[in-house]
Amino acid sequence: MISKSQISFIKSLHQKKNRKEQGLFIVEGLKSFHEFLNSDYVIDSVYCTENLMPKLGNLSRKIKPVEITESELSRISALSTPQAILALVQIPKKTDLNATKLENLFLLALDGVQDPGNLGTIIRTADWFGLNTIICSMDTAEVYNPKVVQASMGSLSRVNLIYTNLEDFFDQTNIPVYGALLDGKSIYETNFGQEGIILLGNEGNGISTELQSRINFPVTIPRYGKAESLNVAISASIFCSELRRKS
Amino acid sequence: MISKSQISFIKSLHQKKNRKEQGLFIVEGLKSFHEFLNSDYVIDSVYCTENLMPKLGNLSRKIKPVEITESELSRISALSTPQAILALVQIPKKTDLNATKLENLFLLALDGVQDPGNLGTIIRTADWFGLNTIICSMDTAEVYNPKVVQASMGSLSRVNLIYTNLEDFFDQTNIPVYGALLDGKSIYETNFGQEGIILLGNEGNGISTELQSRINFPVTIPRYGKAESLNVAISASIFCSELRRKS
Repeated sequence: MISKSQISFIKSLHQKKNRKEQGLFIVEGLKSFHEFLNSDYVIDSVYCTENLMPKLGNLSRKIKPVEITESELSRISALSTPQAILALVQIPKKTDLNATKLENLFLLALDGVQDPGNLGTIIRTADWFGLNTIICSMDTAEVYNPKVVQASMGSLSRVNLIYTNLEDFFDQTNIPVYGALLDGKSIYETNFGQEGIILLGNEGNGISTELQSRINFPVTIPRYGKAESLNVAISASIFCSELRRKS
Repeated sequence: MISKSQISFIKSLHQKKNRKEQGLFIVEGLKSFHEFLNSDYVIDSVYCTENLMPKLGNLSRKIKPVEITESELSRISALSTPQAILALVQIPKKTDLNATKLENLFLLALDGVQDPGNLGTIIRTADWFGLNTIICSMDTAEVYNPKVVQASMGSLSRVNLIYTNLEDFFDQTNIPVYGALLDGKSIYETNFGQEGIILLGNEGNGISTELQSRINFPVTIPRYGKAESLNVAISASIFCSELRRKS
Protein backbone atom coordinates (compact mmCIF):
# COMPACT_ATOMS: atom_id res chain seq x y z
CA MET A 1 0.00 0.00 0.00
CA ILE A 2 1.36 3.33 -1.04
CA SER A 3 -0.13 6.78 -0.46
CA LYS A 4 -1.04 9.25 -3.16
CA SER A 5 1.64 11.64 -1.96
CA GLN A 6 4.29 8.88 -2.11
CA ILE A 7 3.20 8.08 -5.66
CA SER A 8 3.49 11.68 -6.74
CA PHE A 9 6.84 12.05 -4.94
CA ILE A 10 8.31 9.02 -6.76
CA LYS A 11 6.89 10.16 -10.07
CA SER A 12 8.50 13.56 -9.53
CA LEU A 13 11.87 11.75 -9.54
CA HIS A 14 11.34 10.91 -13.21
CA GLN A 15 12.48 14.53 -13.73
CA LYS A 16 16.10 15.60 -13.47
CA LYS A 17 15.30 18.80 -11.57
CA ASN A 18 13.55 16.89 -8.79
CA ARG A 19 16.24 14.20 -8.58
CA LYS A 20 18.78 16.94 -8.01
CA GLU A 21 16.65 18.68 -5.41
CA GLN A 22 15.84 15.50 -3.49
CA GLY A 23 19.23 13.81 -3.95
CA LEU A 24 17.50 10.58 -4.98
CA PHE A 25 17.24 8.46 -8.12
CA ILE A 26 15.25 5.41 -9.18
CA VAL A 27 16.61 1.88 -9.62
CA GLU A 28 14.27 -0.78 -11.02
CA GLY A 29 14.56 -4.56 -11.36
CA LEU A 30 15.84 -7.15 -8.87
CA LYS A 31 19.26 -7.62 -10.43
CA SER A 32 20.07 -3.91 -10.52
CA PHE A 33 18.65 -3.49 -7.01
CA HIS A 34 20.98 -6.20 -5.65
CA GLU A 35 23.98 -4.65 -7.32
CA PHE A 36 23.26 -1.27 -5.72
CA LEU A 37 22.53 -2.98 -2.39
CA ASN A 38 25.97 -4.60 -2.49
CA SER A 39 27.75 -1.35 -3.33
CA ASP A 40 28.64 1.88 -1.54
CA TYR A 41 25.37 3.45 -2.65
CA VAL A 42 22.79 4.06 0.09
CA ILE A 43 19.31 2.64 -0.49
CA ASP A 44 16.65 5.07 0.72
CA SER A 45 13.48 3.05 0.23
CA VAL A 46 12.14 -0.02 -1.53
CA TYR A 47 8.76 -0.67 -3.16
CA CYS A 48 8.00 -4.17 -4.38
CA THR A 49 5.24 -6.58 -5.23
CA GLU A 50 4.26 -9.38 -2.84
CA ASN A 51 5.91 -12.25 -4.72
CA LEU A 52 9.27 -10.49 -4.75
CA MET A 53 9.40 -9.75 -1.02
CA PRO A 54 11.21 -13.00 -0.09
CA LYS A 55 13.94 -12.29 -2.68
CA LEU A 56 15.03 -8.90 -1.42
CA GLY A 57 18.07 -10.09 0.52
CA ASN A 58 19.60 -8.48 3.59
CA LEU A 59 18.34 -4.95 3.92
CA SER A 60 19.59 -2.60 6.59
CA ARG A 61 17.22 -2.36 9.55
CA LYS A 62 16.43 1.21 8.58
CA ILE A 63 14.73 0.11 5.36
CA LYS A 64 11.23 -1.29 5.56
CA PRO A 65 10.23 -2.46 2.07
CA VAL A 66 6.75 -1.29 1.09
CA GLU A 67 4.54 -3.92 -0.51
CA ILE A 68 2.67 -2.57 -3.53
CA THR A 69 0.33 -3.94 -6.18
CA GLU A 70 1.20 -4.30 -9.87
CA SER A 71 -1.09 -1.39 -10.59
CA GLU A 72 0.63 0.85 -8.04
CA LEU A 73 3.99 -0.20 -9.45
CA SER A 74 2.99 0.78 -12.96
CA ARG A 75 2.08 4.23 -11.66
CA ILE A 76 5.49 4.93 -10.11
CA SER A 77 7.69 3.07 -12.62
CA ALA A 78 9.68 4.92 -15.27
CA LEU A 79 9.75 1.79 -17.47
CA SER A 80 7.23 0.72 -20.08
CA THR A 81 7.47 -2.80 -18.60
CA PRO A 82 7.83 -2.41 -14.80
CA GLN A 83 9.95 -5.04 -13.07
CA ALA A 84 8.31 -5.90 -9.72
CA ILE A 85 10.71 -3.75 -7.68
CA LEU A 86 11.59 -0.07 -7.54
CA ALA A 87 14.07 1.44 -5.12
CA LEU A 88 15.02 5.00 -4.36
CA VAL A 89 18.77 5.37 -4.01
CA GLN A 90 20.74 8.34 -2.71
CA ILE A 91 22.77 10.33 -5.22
CA PRO A 92 26.32 10.23 -3.80
CA LYS A 93 28.41 13.35 -3.28
CA LYS A 94 30.33 14.43 -6.35
CA THR A 95 33.74 12.84 -6.70
CA ASP A 96 36.54 15.34 -7.11
CA LEU A 97 38.61 14.83 -10.18
CA ASN A 98 41.98 13.72 -8.92
CA ALA A 99 44.12 13.34 -12.00
CA THR A 100 46.91 11.56 -10.11
CA LYS A 101 44.58 8.69 -9.27
CA LEU A 102 43.81 8.25 -12.93
CA GLU A 103 47.38 7.57 -14.03
CA ASN A 104 48.32 4.09 -15.28
CA LEU A 105 44.70 3.41 -16.14
CA PHE A 106 42.43 3.58 -19.13
CA LEU A 107 39.37 5.73 -18.92
CA LEU A 108 36.60 6.91 -21.19
CA ALA A 109 35.73 10.55 -21.83
CA LEU A 110 32.36 11.45 -23.37
CA ASP A 111 31.82 14.74 -25.19
CA GLY A 112 28.08 15.42 -25.17
CA VAL A 113 26.68 11.90 -25.51
CA GLN A 114 22.93 12.62 -25.49
CA ASP A 115 21.02 9.37 -25.66
CA PRO A 116 20.38 7.84 -22.22
CA GLY A 117 20.38 4.32 -23.70
CA ASN A 118 23.81 4.93 -25.23
CA LEU A 119 25.21 6.27 -21.95
CA GLY A 120 23.84 3.32 -19.97
CA THR A 121 25.23 0.82 -22.49
CA ILE A 122 28.64 2.53 -22.37
CA ILE A 123 28.64 2.22 -18.54
CA ARG A 124 27.78 -1.50 -18.78
CA THR A 125 30.45 -2.10 -21.41
CA ALA A 126 33.11 -0.15 -19.45
CA ASP A 127 32.29 -2.31 -16.43
CA TRP A 128 32.69 -5.52 -18.48
CA PHE A 129 36.12 -4.42 -19.65
CA GLY A 130 37.18 -3.19 -16.20
CA LEU A 131 37.25 0.54 -16.95
CA ASN A 132 35.92 2.10 -13.78
CA THR A 133 35.98 5.81 -14.56
CA ILE A 134 34.10 7.80 -17.20
CA ILE A 135 34.71 11.54 -17.50
CA CYS A 136 31.73 13.35 -19.03
CA SER A 137 31.41 16.83 -20.48
CA MET A 138 28.81 18.94 -18.68
CA ASP A 139 26.35 18.51 -21.58
CA THR A 140 26.45 14.69 -21.53
CA ALA A 141 23.15 13.01 -20.56
CA GLU A 142 22.49 12.92 -16.82
CA VAL A 143 23.60 9.61 -15.33
CA TYR A 144 20.63 9.27 -12.93
CA ASN A 145 18.07 9.40 -15.74
CA PRO A 146 16.02 6.18 -15.27
CA LYS A 147 16.82 5.12 -18.86
CA VAL A 148 20.56 5.39 -18.19
CA VAL A 149 20.26 3.44 -14.94
CA GLN A 150 18.19 0.79 -16.71
CA ALA A 151 20.54 0.37 -19.69
CA SER A 152 23.56 0.15 -17.37
CA MET A 153 22.06 -3.07 -15.92
CA GLY A 154 23.51 -2.46 -12.45
CA SER A 155 26.97 -1.52 -13.71
CA LEU A 156 26.40 2.06 -12.58
CA SER A 157 26.94 0.75 -9.03
CA ARG A 158 30.59 0.05 -9.95
CA VAL A 159 31.54 2.70 -12.52
CA ASN A 160 32.39 6.23 -11.40
CA LEU A 161 31.09 9.05 -13.62
CA ILE A 162 32.60 12.51 -13.23
CA TYR A 163 31.05 15.53 -14.99
CA THR A 164 33.53 18.28 -15.69
CA ASN A 165 34.84 20.72 -18.28
CA LEU A 166 36.78 18.35 -20.55
CA GLU A 167 38.94 21.11 -22.07
CA ASP A 168 40.26 22.08 -18.65
CA PHE A 169 40.73 18.46 -17.66
CA PHE A 170 42.72 17.61 -20.78
CA ASP A 171 44.86 20.73 -20.26
CA GLN A 172 45.69 19.63 -16.71
CA THR A 173 46.59 15.99 -17.35
CA ASN A 174 49.49 14.30 -19.08
CA ILE A 175 47.53 11.14 -19.82
CA PRO A 176 47.49 10.67 -23.61
CA VAL A 177 44.14 11.35 -25.29
CA TYR A 178 42.99 8.91 -28.01
CA GLY A 179 40.14 10.44 -30.00
CA ALA A 180 37.61 8.37 -31.95
CA LEU A 181 37.57 10.13 -35.32
CA LEU A 182 36.72 9.17 -38.89
CA ASP A 183 40.19 10.09 -40.17
CA GLY A 184 42.76 8.72 -37.74
CA LYS A 185 45.18 5.82 -37.60
CA SER A 186 43.55 2.38 -37.75
CA ILE A 187 42.64 1.17 -34.28
CA TYR A 188 44.11 -2.21 -35.27
CA GLU A 189 47.53 -0.61 -35.70
CA THR A 190 47.36 1.63 -32.63
CA ASN A 191 49.39 0.81 -29.53
CA PHE A 192 47.54 2.06 -26.49
CA GLY A 193 50.43 1.71 -24.04
CA GLN A 194 49.70 1.51 -20.32
CA GLU A 195 47.34 4.44 -19.83
CA GLY A 196 45.03 6.59 -21.86
CA ILE A 197 41.81 8.49 -22.23
CA ILE A 198 39.48 7.26 -24.96
CA LEU A 199 37.49 10.28 -26.13
CA LEU A 200 34.13 9.73 -27.85
CA GLY A 201 31.86 12.40 -29.28
CA ASN A 202 28.23 13.37 -29.58
CA GLU A 203 25.88 11.13 -31.63
CA GLY A 204 25.29 13.69 -34.37
CA ASN A 205 28.24 16.06 -34.25
CA GLY A 206 31.13 13.94 -32.99
CA ILE A 207 33.92 15.52 -30.95
CA SER A 208 33.83 19.34 -30.63
CA THR A 209 36.49 21.40 -32.38
CA GLU A 210 37.89 22.61 -29.04
CA LEU A 211 38.47 19.05 -27.90
CA GLN A 212 39.75 17.79 -31.26
CA SER A 213 42.76 20.08 -30.88
CA ARG A 214 43.59 18.36 -27.60
CA ILE A 215 43.68 14.84 -29.05
CA ASN A 216 47.15 13.27 -29.04
CA PHE A 217 46.26 10.23 -31.13
CA PRO A 218 43.38 10.32 -33.64
CA VAL A 219 42.13 6.74 -34.04
CA THR A 220 39.65 5.23 -36.51
CA ILE A 221 37.70 2.01 -36.59
CA PRO A 222 38.21 1.01 -40.23
CA ARG A 223 35.08 0.81 -42.36
CA TYR A 224 34.59 -2.20 -44.64
CA GLY A 225 31.04 -1.42 -45.80
CA LYS A 226 28.86 1.60 -46.41
CA ALA A 227 27.32 2.83 -43.15
CA GLU A 228 28.13 6.49 -42.60
CA SER A 229 29.03 6.10 -38.94
CA LEU A 230 28.87 3.77 -35.95
CA ASN A 231 26.67 4.22 -32.88
CA VAL A 232 28.76 5.81 -30.10
CA ALA A 233 28.23 2.90 -27.68
CA ILE A 234 29.43 0.53 -30.41
CA SER A 235 32.56 2.64 -30.99
CA ALA A 236 33.21 2.73 -27.24
CA SER A 237 32.97 -1.04 -27.01
CA ILE A 238 35.37 -1.65 -29.89
CA PHE A 239 37.89 0.70 -28.26
CA CYS A 240 37.51 -1.07 -24.90
CA SER A 241 37.98 -4.46 -26.54
CA GLU A 242 41.03 -3.36 -28.54
CA LEU A 243 42.88 -1.86 -25.62
CA ARG A 244 42.25 -4.91 -23.45
CA ARG A 245 43.35 -7.39 -26.12
CA LYS A 246 46.63 -5.47 -26.35
CA SER A 247 47.31 -4.95 -22.63
CA MET B 1 -2.24 18.89 -46.61
CA ILE B 2 -3.13 15.39 -45.68
CA SER B 3 -6.57 13.84 -45.23
CA LYS B 4 -7.88 12.23 -42.08
CA SER B 5 -8.02 8.87 -43.79
CA GLN B 6 -4.38 9.18 -44.93
CA ILE B 7 -3.37 10.02 -41.37
CA SER B 8 -5.15 7.01 -39.99
CA PHE B 9 -3.74 4.79 -42.76
CA ILE B 10 -0.15 5.85 -42.00
CA LYS B 11 -0.70 5.50 -38.26
CA SER B 12 -2.00 1.98 -38.86
CA LEU B 13 1.44 1.13 -40.26
CA HIS B 14 2.91 1.62 -36.78
CA GLN B 15 1.50 -1.89 -36.18
CA LYS B 16 3.17 -5.00 -37.53
CA LYS B 17 -0.10 -6.63 -38.60
CA ASN B 18 -1.00 -3.69 -40.83
CA ARG B 19 2.50 -3.40 -42.30
CA LYS B 20 2.24 -7.03 -43.32
CA GLU B 21 -1.24 -6.62 -44.80
CA GLN B 22 -0.38 -3.46 -46.73
CA GLY B 23 3.17 -4.45 -47.68
CA LEU B 24 4.46 -1.05 -46.58
CA PHE B 25 6.73 0.30 -43.85
CA ILE B 26 7.73 3.74 -42.60
CA VAL B 27 11.10 5.44 -43.13
CA GLU B 28 11.72 8.77 -41.38
CA GLY B 29 14.49 11.35 -41.67
CA LEU B 30 16.18 12.80 -44.77
CA LYS B 31 19.36 10.73 -44.54
CA SER B 32 17.51 7.41 -44.24
CA PHE B 33 15.08 8.47 -46.97
CA HIS B 34 17.93 9.17 -49.39
CA GLU B 35 19.56 5.84 -48.66
CA PHE B 36 16.33 3.98 -49.45
CA LEU B 37 15.79 6.17 -52.52
CA ASN B 38 19.21 5.14 -53.82
CA SER B 39 18.60 1.44 -53.21
CA ASP B 40 16.51 -1.32 -54.74
CA TYR B 41 13.62 -0.51 -52.39
CA VAL B 42 10.55 1.06 -53.97
CA ILE B 43 9.30 4.31 -52.44
CA ASP B 44 5.50 4.38 -52.33
CA SER B 45 4.83 7.89 -51.04
CA VAL B 46 6.52 10.83 -49.36
CA TYR B 47 5.20 13.31 -46.78
CA CYS B 48 7.37 16.23 -45.84
CA THR B 49 7.37 19.73 -44.43
CA GLU B 50 7.70 22.78 -46.69
CA ASN B 51 11.34 23.61 -45.91
CA LEU B 52 12.49 20.11 -46.79
CA MET B 53 10.79 19.97 -50.20
CA PRO B 54 13.83 21.32 -52.12
CA LYS B 55 16.11 18.68 -50.57
CA LEU B 56 14.20 15.58 -51.65
CA GLY B 57 16.37 14.78 -54.65
CA ASN B 58 15.29 12.99 -57.81
CA LEU B 59 12.04 11.21 -57.24
CA SER B 60 10.44 8.98 -59.82
CA ARG B 61 7.65 10.71 -61.73
CA LYS B 62 5.13 8.43 -60.08
CA ILE B 63 5.82 9.95 -56.67
CA LYS B 64 4.25 13.30 -55.82
CA PRO B 65 5.55 14.38 -52.42
CA VAL B 66 2.78 15.63 -50.12
CA GLU B 67 3.53 18.81 -48.24
CA ILE B 68 2.43 18.62 -44.62
CA THR B 69 2.65 20.81 -41.51
CA GLU B 70 4.75 20.03 -38.43
CA SER B 71 1.56 19.25 -36.59
CA GLU B 72 0.40 16.78 -39.26
CA LEU B 73 3.85 15.20 -39.24
CA SER B 74 3.74 14.65 -35.50
CA ARG B 75 0.43 12.81 -35.94
CA ILE B 76 1.76 10.29 -38.46
CA SER B 77 5.31 9.94 -37.11
CA ALA B 78 6.38 6.91 -35.09
CA LEU B 79 9.21 8.91 -33.50
CA SER B 80 9.10 10.99 -30.35
CA THR B 81 11.04 13.67 -32.27
CA PRO B 82 9.72 13.65 -35.89
CA GLN B 83 12.28 14.46 -38.57
CA ALA B 84 10.57 16.62 -41.22
CA ILE B 85 10.08 13.74 -43.67
CA LEU B 86 8.23 10.44 -43.60
CA ALA B 87 8.12 8.00 -46.49
CA LEU B 88 6.19 4.82 -47.04
CA VAL B 89 8.38 2.15 -48.61
CA GLN B 90 7.33 -1.19 -50.10
CA ILE B 91 8.28 -4.31 -48.20
CA PRO B 92 10.27 -6.36 -50.74
CA LYS B 93 9.49 -9.97 -51.54
CA LYS B 94 11.14 -12.43 -49.19
CA THR B 95 14.60 -13.52 -50.25
CA ASP B 96 15.01 -17.27 -50.48
CA LEU B 97 17.80 -18.64 -48.39
CA ASN B 98 20.38 -19.84 -50.88
CA ALA B 99 23.13 -21.38 -48.80
CA THR B 100 25.53 -21.58 -51.75
CA LYS B 101 25.51 -17.82 -52.13
CA LEU B 102 26.56 -17.47 -48.51
CA GLU B 103 29.80 -19.42 -48.81
CA ASN B 104 33.12 -17.59 -48.42
CA LEU B 105 31.40 -14.84 -46.48
CA PHE B 106 30.78 -13.88 -42.90
CA LEU B 107 27.23 -13.46 -41.75
CA LEU B 108 25.38 -12.83 -38.53
CA ALA B 109 22.64 -15.08 -37.15
CA LEU B 110 20.31 -13.77 -34.45
CA ASP B 111 18.43 -16.12 -32.15
CA GLY B 112 15.45 -14.20 -30.78
CA VAL B 113 16.90 -10.71 -30.45
CA GLN B 114 13.88 -8.81 -29.09
CA ASP B 115 14.77 -5.15 -28.72
CA PRO B 116 14.15 -3.12 -31.90
CA GLY B 117 16.95 -0.69 -31.00
CA ASN B 118 19.39 -3.58 -30.67
CA LEU B 119 18.34 -5.07 -34.02
CA GLY B 120 18.66 -1.69 -35.77
CA THR B 121 22.08 -1.07 -34.25
CA ILE B 122 23.23 -4.55 -35.31
CA ILE B 123 22.11 -3.81 -38.90
CA ARG B 124 24.03 -0.50 -38.87
CA THR B 125 27.14 -2.14 -37.43
CA ALA B 126 27.00 -5.06 -39.88
CA ASP B 127 26.81 -2.53 -42.72
CA TRP B 128 29.87 -0.66 -41.37
CA PHE B 129 31.88 -3.86 -41.32
CA GLY B 130 30.61 -5.01 -44.72
CA LEU B 131 28.49 -7.95 -43.55
CA ASN B 132 25.49 -7.83 -45.85
CA THR B 133 23.38 -10.73 -44.64
CA ILE B 134 21.73 -11.35 -41.28
CA ILE B 135 19.83 -14.58 -40.70
CA CYS B 136 17.15 -14.21 -38.01
CA SER B 137 15.17 -16.79 -36.09
CA MET B 138 11.43 -16.45 -36.59
CA ASP B 139 11.03 -14.90 -33.11
CA THR B 140 13.56 -12.11 -33.71
CA ALA B 141 12.08 -8.58 -33.70
CA GLU B 142 10.40 -7.60 -36.97
CA VAL B 143 12.79 -5.65 -39.18
CA TYR B 144 10.16 -3.14 -40.44
CA ASN B 145 9.32 -1.93 -36.93
CA PRO B 146 9.87 1.87 -37.09
CA LYS B 147 12.33 1.67 -34.18
CA VAL B 148 14.45 -0.89 -36.04
CA VAL B 149 14.40 1.20 -39.23
CA GLN B 150 15.33 4.30 -37.22
CA ALA B 151 18.22 2.68 -35.31
CA SER B 152 19.62 1.18 -38.53
CA MET B 153 20.19 4.77 -39.80
CA GLY B 154 19.58 3.84 -43.42
CA SER B 155 21.76 0.71 -43.32
CA LEU B 156 18.65 -1.46 -43.70
CA SER B 157 18.66 -0.35 -47.35
CA ARG B 158 21.90 -2.32 -47.85
CA VAL B 159 21.70 -5.26 -45.43
CA ASN B 160 19.59 -8.29 -46.28
CA LEU B 161 17.64 -9.85 -43.39
CA ILE B 162 16.29 -13.36 -43.81
CA TYR B 163 13.89 -14.86 -41.25
CA THR B 164 14.02 -18.63 -41.07
CA ASN B 165 14.22 -21.65 -38.80
CA LEU B 166 17.85 -21.44 -37.67
CA GLU B 167 18.04 -25.10 -36.63
CA ASP B 168 17.12 -26.26 -40.13
CA PHE B 169 19.45 -23.70 -41.70
CA PHE B 170 22.43 -24.79 -39.59
CA ASP B 171 21.68 -28.44 -40.40
CA GLN B 172 21.73 -27.69 -44.13
CA THR B 173 24.92 -25.65 -44.32
CA ASN B 174 28.59 -26.50 -43.92
CA ILE B 175 29.55 -22.95 -42.99
CA PRO B 176 31.13 -23.09 -39.51
CA VAL B 177 29.01 -21.62 -36.71
CA TYR B 178 30.75 -19.42 -34.13
CA GLY B 179 28.51 -18.96 -31.09
CA ALA B 180 28.82 -16.02 -28.68
CA LEU B 181 28.80 -17.78 -25.31
CA LEU B 182 30.07 -16.99 -21.83
CA ASP B 183 32.24 -20.11 -21.71
CA GLY B 184 34.04 -20.43 -25.02
CA LYS B 185 37.52 -19.82 -26.36
CA SER B 186 38.71 -16.22 -26.12
CA ILE B 187 37.69 -14.23 -29.20
CA TYR B 188 41.23 -12.80 -29.23
CA GLU B 189 42.65 -16.30 -29.79
CA THR B 190 40.03 -17.43 -32.30
CA ASN B 191 40.87 -17.73 -35.99
CA PHE B 192 37.76 -17.07 -38.01
CA GLY B 193 39.11 -18.34 -41.32
CA GLN B 194 37.46 -17.24 -44.57
CA GLU B 195 33.79 -17.82 -43.82
CA GLY B 196 31.53 -18.20 -40.86
CA ILE B 197 28.24 -17.56 -39.14
CA ILE B 198 28.40 -15.47 -35.97
CA LEU B 199 25.48 -16.61 -33.80
CA LEU B 200 24.17 -14.24 -31.12
CA GLY B 201 21.38 -14.94 -28.66
CA ASN B 202 18.38 -13.35 -27.00
CA GLU B 203 18.96 -10.43 -24.59
CA GLY B 204 17.85 -12.31 -21.50
CA ASN B 205 18.26 -15.99 -22.31
CA GLY B 206 21.16 -16.11 -24.74
CA ILE B 207 21.31 -18.84 -27.39
CA SER B 208 18.66 -21.59 -27.16
CA THR B 209 19.74 -25.11 -26.16
CA GLU B 210 18.74 -26.49 -29.58
CA LEU B 211 21.05 -24.03 -31.34
CA GLN B 212 23.89 -24.36 -28.82
CA SER B 213 24.30 -27.99 -29.88
CA ARG B 214 24.85 -26.81 -33.46
CA ILE B 215 27.71 -24.44 -32.60
CA ASN B 216 31.08 -25.52 -34.01
CA PHE B 217 33.18 -22.94 -32.17
CA PRO B 218 32.03 -21.48 -28.85
CA VAL B 219 33.65 -18.05 -28.52
CA THR B 220 33.80 -15.63 -25.57
CA ILE B 221 34.60 -11.96 -25.25
CA PRO B 222 36.84 -12.03 -22.16
CA ARG B 223 35.59 -10.14 -19.14
CA TYR B 224 38.00 -7.86 -17.27
CA GLY B 225 35.49 -6.30 -14.86
CA LYS B 226 32.25 -7.23 -13.15
CA ALA B 227 29.30 -6.69 -15.48
CA GLU B 228 27.27 -9.89 -15.79
CA SER B 229 26.89 -9.68 -19.55
CA LEU B 230 27.24 -7.45 -22.59
CA ASN B 231 24.42 -5.94 -24.62
CA VAL B 232 23.84 -8.12 -27.73
CA ALA B 233 24.55 -5.27 -30.18
CA ILE B 234 27.83 -4.63 -28.35
CA SER B 235 28.79 -8.33 -28.61
CA ALA B 236 27.88 -8.33 -32.30
CA SER B 237 30.09 -5.32 -32.94
CA ILE B 238 33.11 -6.80 -31.18
CA PHE B 239 32.72 -9.99 -33.22
CA CYS B 240 32.46 -7.97 -36.47
CA SER B 241 35.55 -5.97 -35.56
CA GLU B 242 37.58 -9.05 -34.60
CA LEU B 243 36.86 -10.98 -37.74
CA ARG B 244 37.66 -7.99 -39.94
CA ARG B 245 40.95 -7.25 -38.16
CA LYS B 246 42.00 -10.84 -38.80
CA SER B 247 40.85 -11.16 -42.42
